Amino acid sequence: METLAQLKKYSAELVDLHHVLALMQWDQEVRMPRRAAEGRAGQFATLSGLVHRREVAPELGALLVEAGAQKERLSVEDQALLRVMRRSYNQNTRLPEEFVAEFSRLASQAQMAWLEAREQADFGIFQPLLERLVELSRQQAEYLGYAAHPYDALLDLHEEGLTTVQVEEMFGELQAPLVGLVKKFAGRLAPLSFGEPFALSGQERFAEHLLMAMGFDFNRGCLARSPHPFTTTLGHHDRRITNRYAPKSLDFIFGALHEGGHALYEQGIDERLARSHLDDGVSLGIHESQSRFWENVVGRSHPFWQRFFPELQQAFPAQFAHTGLDDFVRGINAVTPGLIRVDADEVTYNLHVLIRFEIEKGLIEGSLEVGALPRVWREKYRQYLGVEVESDADGVLQDIHWAHGSFGYFPTYTIGNLASAQIWGAYKQYDPGFGQTLAAGNLTKVREWLAREIHGHGSVYLPQELLTRVTGAPLSAQPFLAYLEEKFSSLVA
Amino acid sequence: METLAQLKKYSAELVDLHHVLALMQWDQEVRMPRRAAEGRAGQFATLSGLVHRREVAPELGALLVEAGAQKERLSVEDQALLRVMRRSYNQNTRLPEEFVAEFSRLASQAQMAWLEAREQADFGIFQPLLERLVELSRQQAEYLGYAAHPYDALLDLHEEGLTTVQVEEMFGELQAPLVGLVKKFAGRLAPLSFGEPFALSGQERFAEHLLMAMGFDFNRGCLARSPHPFTTTLGHHDRRITNRYAPKSLDFIFGALHEGGHALYEQGIDERLARSHLDDGVSLGIHESQSRFWENVVGRSHPFWQRFFPELQQAFPAQFAHTGLDDFVRGINAVTPGLIRVDADEVTYNLHVLIRFEIEKGLIEGSLEVGALPRVWREKYRQYLGVEVESDADGVLQDIHWAHGSFGYFPTYTIGNLASAQIWGAYKQYDPGFGQTLAAGNLTKVREWLAREIHGHGSVYLPQELLTRVTGAPLSAQPFLAYLEEKFSSLVA
Repeated sequence: METLAQLKKYSAELVDLHHVLALMQWDQEVRMPRRAAEGRAGQFATLSGLVHRREVAPELGALLVEAGAQKERLSVEDQALLRVMRRSYNQNTRLPEEFVAEFSRLASQAQMAWLEAREQADFGIFQPLLERLVELSRQQAEYLGYAAHPYDALLDLHEEGLTTVQVEEMFGELQAPLVGLVKKFAGRLAPLSFGEPFALSGQERFAEHLLMAMGFDFNRGCLARSPHPFTTTLGHHDRRITNRYAPKSLDFIFGALHEGGHALYEQGIDERLARSHLDDGVSLGIHESQSRFWENVVGRSHPFWQRFFPELQQAFPAQFAHTGLDDFVRGINAVTPGLIRVDADEVTYNLHVLIRFEIEKGLIEGSLEVGALPRVWREKYRQYLGVEVESDADGVLQDIHWAHGSFGYFPTYTIGNLASAQIWGAYKQYDPGFGQTLAAGNLTKVREWLAREIHGHGSVYLPQELLTRVTGAPLSAQPFLAYLEEKFSSLVA
Repeated sequence: METLAQLKKYSAELVDLHHVLALMQWDQEVRMPRRAAEGRAGQFATLSGLVHRREVAPELGALLVEAGAQKERLSVEDQALLRVMRRSYNQNTRLPEEFVAEFSRLASQAQMAWLEAREQADFGIFQPLLERLVELSRQQAEYLGYAAHPYDALLDLHEEGLTTVQVEEMFGELQAPLVGLVKKFAGRLAPLSFGEPFALSGQERFAEHLLMAMGFDFNRGCLARSPHPFTTTLGHHDRRITNRYAPKSLDFIFGALHEGGHALYEQGIDERLARSHLDDGVSLGIHESQSRFWENVVGRSHPFWQRFFPELQQAFPAQFAHTGLDDFVRGINAVTPGLIRVDADEVTYNLHVLIRFEIEKGLIEGSLEVGALPRVWREKYRQYLGVEVESDADGVLQDIHWAHGSFGYFPTYTIGNLASAQIWGAYKQYDPGFGQTLAAGNLTKVREWLAREIHGHGSVYLPQELLTRVTGAPLSAQPFLAYLEEKFSSLVA
C-alpha cells in the first residue's frame, strides 16, 4: 500500500525534525552560553517555521484522507499512526498561522512579566498579559472545536479525549475524602531537616546510582544538570534526563526517580515504533503516572528504602548516620498542608491541582475575571488546605503554566497520581511478593512489567484504553484513596 | 532594494539551519549516548536534505542573478555577501544530487575501511575504496570546473582562488631552506618527558585559565571534552571549543591555544555580519593562521611562558617544580624529524604537508596510481625527513582526510603556518614592545589588534586580499623562514 508507505516516510521525517528541535531546547537548558539566547531563538523560529509548513502541507492532508479511506485494511498499529497524525494535522491546521504567532509572542512577553511580578510579588504586573492570554485561549478553544464546554478543547490538547465533566467527576470523588485524609494525617509524621549540606558531586553520583538500579540505560540516554529537571527525547535511542542539586534538599533523589520514571517510559517503547508518531508516551497523564509511580509509590515506600537507605547513609554519613530507616521513611512522607504545589506531599498535592482546575474552568467559560484571581486563590487555599497566602508570589504567581498560555495542563498531574496507584494495584496482583521484590532491590522485575504492559505500546492505544487494558478498569479515584489510607495509616501507626 | 533584502533573509535562514546542523555534530561528539548514532544519522540526512533543497532552489538562483545585475550599487559588504552566496550556490548546483549521495556513501565506507586498515597496518584494505574516491574526486573537479589543472578545483573548495601553481611556488620557496633548517636544528633541543601523570581536572582548569587569558568569552562559547579537539560555530554568540586530556602529554595546553585561536577568530567577527554568510572565517588557511599564531608563535615563545610558566609549575608541581623556564621553552620546541604529522614541530611540519600535496596532485592529475602510495610515501619521507616508515599505519594511513574524500585540504595547513608568521611580522611593527607585552600577559592587546585587523571582517575580503591589507604583501614563505631561523637560532644558543 503506497499511501501508507508515504505516510510513514512523512511521519519519520517530521519526527526527525521534532527531535532536532528537542535537541535545541535540551542544549539551551544544559549547555548553551548565556549570550546565545537570542540567536538560538532565531534558529528555532526558522526551523520550526519550516517544520510547521510541512505539518500543514496539503500533501499531508491528502495522504491522511487516502489512508483513512482504506482504514479497515490497516493493522491496529497503522490505524493508531493514522489517528495520531490526523490529530496533530487537525490541531496544526485549525489554528491560523497569525494566531499561533501572536499567541507565541504574547506568551514570551507574559513569561517575562510573570518573572517580574513574582519577584516583586505584584500580580498587577502580570494581570493585563494574563487577561489577553485567557482571551486568546478562549479563541483557541473555538478554533479547535469542542462538544460541550470550551475547556474541553484545551483539556484534549494535553490528554486526548478528556472532558470537563470527567475532571469534575474525578475531583468530585476526590475532594471530600482528601480533605478528610489531610485532617487525619497532617502533622503526624516528623519532617527531616539537615544541618550539613550534601556535597553536590555526591548527590549526582547517588542519583546516577538510583537511575542505574531502576534500569535507565545510559547507552540510550544521559543525565545532565539544569535549573528545572526535565526529560526529553532526541531519538528512539536517545532519551535524556536533567536533575538539580541543592545543598540541603532531598530533591536530588525524588527528582531523579521522577524523571527516571518518565525516561523509562520512553526507553521502553518498542523499537518497531521508532521514527514514527507512535514512538512517544500516549499522554501527559499516563506519562505522569510513570514518574509518580517511581517517585512516590516505589520511591517513598518502606521496602524500597530497606534496600537503599544503607547506601544513602554510606554516601552521606554526616546527615544520616544517626537516623533510623523508619524515621527516614516517615520524614519523606510528612503530610503538611502548604502553599506550594511542587513541595506538596502525596495527600495534599491533588488539592493544589483542584484549585487550579476550578480557576481555569472559570476563566475559560467566562465566569471568573482575571482581576479576581488573587482573592479567589486565597479563599480556596484557606478553604481546601487551611493555609493563609501572605504573598501572591507564594500564591497565584507560583506556577509558570499560565504564563506559557497553558490551560488544561494541571489536571493531568492528578490523572497521573490516580493512575499510578491504579497501576500499582495491577502490579501487586502480578507480584504478590512486591514488598520483598522492592526490599531486594529487584527493580528490574517492576520495570519489565511496566515495559510489557505500558511502555512498549507507545501511543498505539488511547490513554483510557491503555489503562483499562492494564488494570481492568477505567481511571478511578478509589485505588488512589485506598492507597493513601493504607500507606499513611501504617506510617503513623 | 527589495532583492537585497530577500537575499539577506535567505542567507539568515540558511545560516540558521547550518548552525543547527553544527549543533547536531557538536552534540554527537560531546554528549550523545552511544546507541543514538544511527538515529542521529537519519535526522542529519533529513535536515541536510531539506537544507540542500533550499540551497539549490531556482528561487535563490534568480535572486543571485537579480542582485548581480545591480552589483555596482551595492556596498562592499553586500557585494561580498553576493560573492560568497554565489560561490556556495555554484558549488551546490554544479554537483548532481546522485553524485553527492554516492560520494558521501563511499566516504562512509572508506572511513570504516581506513580504520580497519590502520588497525591492521594493511593498506590493501583501504586501497580499492581510495581508488574509487580518487576517481570521484577527479569527476568532482570536472563538475566544478577549473582553468589550468583539475586539482585547482579541489584547492578552491578549501581556499578560495588558490591554484596548483601557487602551491608549487610556495613549496618551491620552502623546501630547500626547510631541509636545511631541519639539518641545522634537529636534536639540538632536549624534549620534555614526564614520570608523573597530569591530573585530568587540573589540565582542564589550566586550559580554561589560558583561554580566559587569551580573551575567549565564556558568555559566548564554552569548552567541552571530545576525542578530537575542534572548534565550531552554533550562532553569532555561540562559538564552542573542545579539547582532550591525556595523562602524560602537554596536548591540553597546545590544543587549547590552537582551538582558542580558531575561536577568537570566530568570536571577533563584527556583530553587523551576524546571521549572514559573511559571519565566518574567510578560508581554512586564514583560520589556521589564527590557531597557529596562538599555538606556536605566541604559545611556544619564551616571553609567553615568562608569564605563564610559574602558574604551570604551581598547578603541576610534581612535573615542573625542578624544571627551569629555559629548559621548558626548549623542550616544547624540540626539533625532531618524525613520522607523524600531527606530532611534528614547527620546522618539520610543512615537509609533511609537502609530501601529501605532491601525492594528491599526482593522484588527481593521473600521474600517480593509488597502488604505488605506500612505496612513494616511504621514499618521500626518507628523502625529505630522513626517516624510515616501518608500518603503513604510521605512514600513508595516518591521516583521515583522504578517507573523507578530502583532497586539496592539506596545503591550507602550510598556508596557515606561513600566514601566522607574516601576521606576526605586522604585529611586531604595531607593537615593537611585543616581548614585554607577552611577558606581562597582556594578551588583550594582541587579541584586540587581531580582531581589528582580521577577525572583525569575517568573510568580507578574499583571503589573499585580507592578508595584503594586514601585512602589506601577499602570502610569502620568507617571513616564516626568517621567523624559524631567528627563533631556533636563539633557542639553541
